[in-house]
Formats: sequence, structure tokens, C-alpha cells
Amino acid sequence: MERSARASATTRTVALLTDFGLADPYVGQMKGVLARLAPQARLVDLTHGVAPFNLAQGGFFLAASAPHFPEDAVFLAVVDPGVGTARRIVAVERRRQTFLAPDNGLLGLILDGPEPVRAFDLTPDPIVLNRVSPTFQARDVFAPLAASLALGRPAGDLGTATDPAGLARGEWSRPELGETAAKAHVLHVDRFGNCALNLREGCRIPAEGLRLLLPGPRPIRRVRTYADLAAGEVGLLAGSQGFLELAVNMGSAARSLGLGPGAAVSLAWG
Amino acid sequence: MERSARASATTRTVALLTDFGLADPYVGQMKGVLARLAPQARLVDLTHGVAPFNLAQGGFFLAASAPHFPEDAVFLAVVDPGVGTARRIVAVERRRQTFLAPDNGLLGLILDGPEPVRAFDLTPDPIVLNRVSPTFQARDVFAPLAASLALGRPAGDLGTATDPAGLARGEWSRPELGETAAKAHVLHVDRFGNCALNLREGCRIPAEGLRLLLPGPRPIRRVRTYADLAAGEVGLLAGSQGFLELAVNMGSAARSLGLGPGAAVSLAWG
Amino acid sequence: MERSARASATTRTVALLTDFGLADPYVGQMKGVLARLAPQARLVDLTHGVAPFNLAQGGFFLAASAPHFPEDAVFLAVVDPGVGTARRIVAVERRRQTFLAPDNGLLGLILDGPEPVRAFDLTPDPIVLNRVSPTFQARDVFAPLAASLALGRPAGDLGTATDPAGLARGEWSRPELGETAAKAHVLHVDRFGNCALNLREGCRIPAEGLRLLLPGPRPIRRVRTYADLAAGEVGLLAGSQGFLELAVNMGSAARSLGLGPGAAVSLAWG
Repeated sequence: MERSARASATTRTVALLTDFGLADPYVGQMKGVLARLAPQARLVDLTHGVAPFNLAQGGFFLAASAPHFPEDAVFLAVVDPGVGTARRIVAVERRRQTFLAPDNGLLGLILDGPEPVRAFDLTPDPIVLNRVSPTFQARDVFAPLAASLALGRPAGDLGTATDPAGLARGEWSRPELGETAAKAHVLHVDRFGNCALNLREGCRIPAEGLRLLLPGPRPIRRVRTYADLAAGEVGLLAGSQGFLELAVNMGSAARSLGLGPGAAVSLAWG
Repeated sequence: MERSARASATTRTVALLTDFGLADPYVGQMKGVLARLAPQARLVDLTHGVAPFNLAQGGFFLAASAPHFPEDAVFLAVVDPGVGTARRIVAVERRRQTFLAPDNGLLGLILDGPEPVRAFDLTPDPIVLNRVSPTFQARDVFAPLAASLALGRPAGDLGTATDPAGLARGEWSRPELGETAAKAHVLHVDRFGNCALNLREGCRIPAEGLRLLLPGPRPIRRVRTYADLAAGEVGLLAGSQGFLELAVNMGSAARSLGLGPGAAVSLAWG
Repeated sequence: MERSARASATTRTVALLTDFGLADPYVGQMKGVLARLAPQARLVDLTHGVAPFNLAQGGFFLAASAPHFPEDAVFLAVVDPGVGTARRIVAVERRRQTFLAPDNGLLGLILDGPEPVRAFDLTPDPIVLNRVSPTFQARDVFAPLAASLALGRPAGDLGTATDPAGLARGEWSRPELGETAAKAHVLHVDRFGNCALNLREGCRIPAEGLRLLLPGPRPIRRVRTYADLAAGEVGLLAGSQGFLELAVNMGSAARSLGLGPGAAVSLAWG
């Protein structure tokens, strides 16, 4: 009893995000490892439907979802085009949440967000890495590390502190946000054609006098909900994911504007 | 210990049904909220593959599945074309199970089933609704309500009793079942082409002298299993889901009869 | 407390593998039954994306995944073209893991693996079978049996011991492995086009002097990682799944060699 009570007091939820899909047994094998090493941990699938190797989309899903998870959740995020190469494995702590991921930019929106973070290098010794499958570190390296974090081991026990400024970022993690203009990227196009930008909900972009320069030019309004737009009108609004998105009421902004994932977007005002 | 023992004694399983799919992080965010607010609750995905906005199919999946779940399960069901409009949010109790859903007909087959139900209006105050994302009430309103139910709070504590007769229904939830004829709807076409009707397994439709009028006319037999049908013969049988279905042995009833979801079906006998 | 402590001490993880997909509520209903009958058991989806009725692929996923799961896990595996016929239902024990499945070859790679197994016939009485849906034994027969196993009941309590040699196998479960040649089958083609063979990682096939006869002939090298291959070169290597696979660096072995699931492959050396 004693032991189980303590375990349940310290066991953290593990949220999983990958680009593996669900047709293969890869996600199941990761969960098998977690069930074996951290049997009390609650596992939650964030999504395994990230487009293959799409770091910006995966990073957006992580940043948009984290605030809704338990305050001490562990995020096990693997979108890893460089698996088997020398890229590091890192854990980033923000408040009491921990993000475990390859150091390839996937955590960019967490690193460059408004809150302070701490970072740790958890890359195993090459001797250890040599013993596991070079193609499936998600199961053989990441999942055991996530299990240790879930059981309450501090990230600092599993590796060494490192400067968050030295971690990899894609250019999509930091928009250029000036006094009268912004250069942004499309992080994700949802199934309705709304285009999520790397501009956070709270950023200072005015409602009036706004112009879309690229793609454009055309005037555009910042509104509160889809319903504030006329049919077919393109608008900028904060969707449910904590970032601004380009949207067309009853239509597809991606189609109207010819935008896809990764596209550049420029706005100006004043 | 004391506290955790009590929590586990009262924590209910939460079954989730949506039309969100699994490619986006929306289901994951709902589960994150549940993991945060009701950490002991067991979450079971019923399915997230309901065709977008298809209330009849979602309602059929719910009614067909509920008997197999724990007797005190909470069903969190969100197929919600009217999200952000003034439609109510309701909880319907049948025995000790609770169904939480928008009041748009999704619960029709539960409401119009053979067992008595109680209903509660759980629509939050507009002031509360105004604070959450107007487009993602599943995460911001439904999931917290489901967490409260999972933790053992009675539906009556979260809202006010309301007459089940006043809740929304689609015309598909109540077939016209007469002495010698029935008018029904196709609720769902499964991947084999079997067409599930809104006629419950136990309803009095005879095995002999049965005719399909629409689409038709043609004679049809009510049989026990697919194997009772000749190759290519169209039959009526109780599948595994508690409702009658039109089936063709080794073939597709949907294709043979030209039926799709929502299609009208008429039967006569005697 | 007493009761819950004991339950959690003996409750086993249940891993689920089916060919049902996730669009229908079938997997959800199986989990509902497990949540009802074994509320403390942890459920892990291995995958529900096995190609319909593909026993070799399902068997491969099971054999490849089992080593990563808890040492006392229960595997509930249903790929069952013969549902409703007289095929048996069996439990196979290997060390402390239990595999519950139809006796149709799905467990072939477990039965014919290097480790000893015990087998039990768990087919219910025809009177019991007659009471459940003939088309959905996964929910009505397999899930209750898995729940009993998860709660710690020995397989021998639920049926009778049977000789593992008498259980069904596909020809794909036993490659012909001779002194200078091997005849094998493609069990699975992954999304990169790698072709997993029914040759276990540790089998004695030399690195040098290897020839692919069928499809072929052509020389082929056994290498350690994809990166050991020249661009476009076909090689044989142990992937992450415990079996040898034909692979092309930066390309698709399936396309290069014209191979698909179930294809015959012959190798020779010396």
C-alpha cells in the first residue's frame, strides 16, 4: 500500500505527440514501454496525425495544447527527421510541465513563448544509443526517459542543464513583429481551411486599418468570431488554439488566399 | 490515502464520442482537460470517426454502445453543428448512466428508447460562455462538465431538471411502427454495406410475409444471421448493435438497394 | 481499501490488436466491456489498423511488439475471418504474457518462436455462443475472457490445456531456413516500402556472399543500418521490429523489387 500510494502521488500524466499515425504498431510499442516502466502513469494521445516530418505543425499542436493539460504533465513529442543522427535529445521545463523532444526545432514555440523555460540535454551516451534500434529511438530512448520523468525523477537527474538559447528553432517559431507590420508563417491549415499563424492571441495587432500585404495586398479586419465576418470575407481572429488565424466565414481561407503549411504571410497597419 | 480511496470509489468512466477525427489535437485537448480536472477518471474513446455533423450516426453509435459500458458511465458526446449558437447543453440520465451532449437531437435514440430517462439543462451562464472559445465548447464547456460528473457530482447540482419531452429530436429517432407497416430511416451504413435502421432489435416485425416497399417493392425475409440468406439475397436481421439492419449475404445492401445514410425505408407485412 | 489494493496488485495490462479500424464504435465497445468487467486494467491500443483479415500482418505486429510490453501483459488479438464458424478460441502463454486470439494462425509467430509456450482452448460452450451476437465475438466473447485474464484468473481456469502443436499456422509463420538458402515471406510492407520478412533478427544468414534469388537473382548485402547502403542499393537488415527486412536506402524496397504483403522471397549464400 505504502509504495502504491507514493507512486500515485508522484506519477505524472504523459501526453504523446508523434507523426507515426495509428496504422502501424509504433505508437502501441511506445505505450507498451511506458506501461512497463511507469505502470501508474496516465497516457493521453495528443495526436499522432502530425504530417510526416512537419515540425511547425507538431510544434503548433504542442504549444496550443499544453495549457489545457495537467500542470505537471510530461509531453513526449517525437517528430524526428534526424533520428539516428547526432541531434540532441532535450527536455524543456515551463513552470511544472516538461517537454521531451529531439532538439530540432519542434519545441520552438515553447522556447520562444512569453514564459521562462529551463532546458536539459538528455542525449544518452553513444554506447547506450548503439545498443538500441537506430531507427526507433521514440520507443527505445524517448519512452524510457518519459517514464522516468513520469515517475517523478527531475530532468536534471537524467541529463545536464543547457542554455535554452542554444536549442534549435525553425524560422517559423519567431515572427517578425514590428510597430506597423508583421511577417508571419502559416503553422497549420485545419480541415476547414483556417490558416493558423505563428502570432500569439495576445500580440498587438490592431483591429482597424489592417492590410494583408502577402498574399495580397487587400484590406483585412481583425474580428472576434467567424460570425463577425461577411460571407466570403477574409478576417484575422483568435481561434480556439491560442494563435491568430486567417479565416473566411463559411469558406476556406487556404483556398481563397492560396495558402498552405509553411507559407509566408505579411500584415501591415497604421 | 483516505482521499484517494474515496475518489476512486466515486470516479466514473468517461466515454468520448465526437466527429473531430484524430488528425487534429482537438480530442487530445479534451482529454487533457479531463486529465487535469478528473485525474482518476478512466477515459475510453467510443469513436471520433462520426461523419462530420451526422447526428443520426452519432446517436446510433451512442445507443448501440451504451449497454456495453459500465453501469455508471458518463458519455461525453459532441457532434455539434450549432456550436456557438443558443442551443442548450443537456445531461440525460438513464438508470445510472449519464449522457452529456448538445440539445440537437444527438440523444434522440436514448430519449425515445424503451427506458425512462431524466433530463437536466446544463447550459452555462452567457457570462461564462463569453469567456471561452466560441468554437471549441467541447474542450472548454463539455469536458469540464464531464469531469464534474465523473467525480460524482449529480447532474442536478450542475443544472436544472427539464422535461425530456422538450429536448430536440431528429425525425430519425422515432420510426413509424404500425400494425402492418413500418417507416424507418437508415442510421448508418457500415463498411460492409449493411444498413442499420432505427428499428430496435426487439420490435415486432414478423419473419414471414415481409415486403420491402421503399426501396422496392420486393419480398424480404427477417433472418437470424447473414448465413441464413442465399448469396445476393437481401434480408432483415438484428446485427450486433441492437438495431435491425438490411443486409446482403456476401454483398452490400447499400449498393444492392441504392441506400445511403438518412435514406427512408418502408416495410409492410400481413 | 483492502479490495482495491489487491485488485491493483493483480490487474494486468491489456493490449488490443484488431483489424476493425477506429471509424466504427467496435473497438470502443470492446473497451467498454473491459472497463465494466476489469475496471482497474490498463488498456493499450497496439493497433487497430491491421489490413482487414490479414493474419500475417497482425501476427507480425504481435510478435514484434510483445517484448516491449509489461512482462505479464494480456494481448487481446482479433483478426477473425472465421467469426461465427467453429474455429476455436485459444490462449497461448509465453513466460508470463498471455495471447488471446482465434485459432486461425494469428499467433503463428508466437507459437513458432524460440521460446516455449503453453496453450489453452477457451472456446465457450455452444449454448453460451448462441446467446451472443454471432458477428461480434470480439466484444461478446473475447473481451470478457480478456477481462478475466486481466483480473488474474489463470488461462487454465477458463478452459482446458491443449497441445500448442495442434494450433493453426499459416505457411508464413515458419520460413524454410537451410544451410545455404532460405525461403521466406513478406509479412508487412511499411509506409517507407521496407519489406519485413518472417526471418528473425538472430537467424544465421551471413553478411557476405548473399544472393536474392526470388525476386531476382541479384546480389544483396546484410547490413546494420539503412545508412550502410548506397543510394538505391537493396539490402537486408534488422529493423526495429525484431525481424529482418528488405530495404532500399532513400527508396522503397517494395517498389524496387515488386514485392507486396505475402510475397515469397528466396535467399542463398555460400
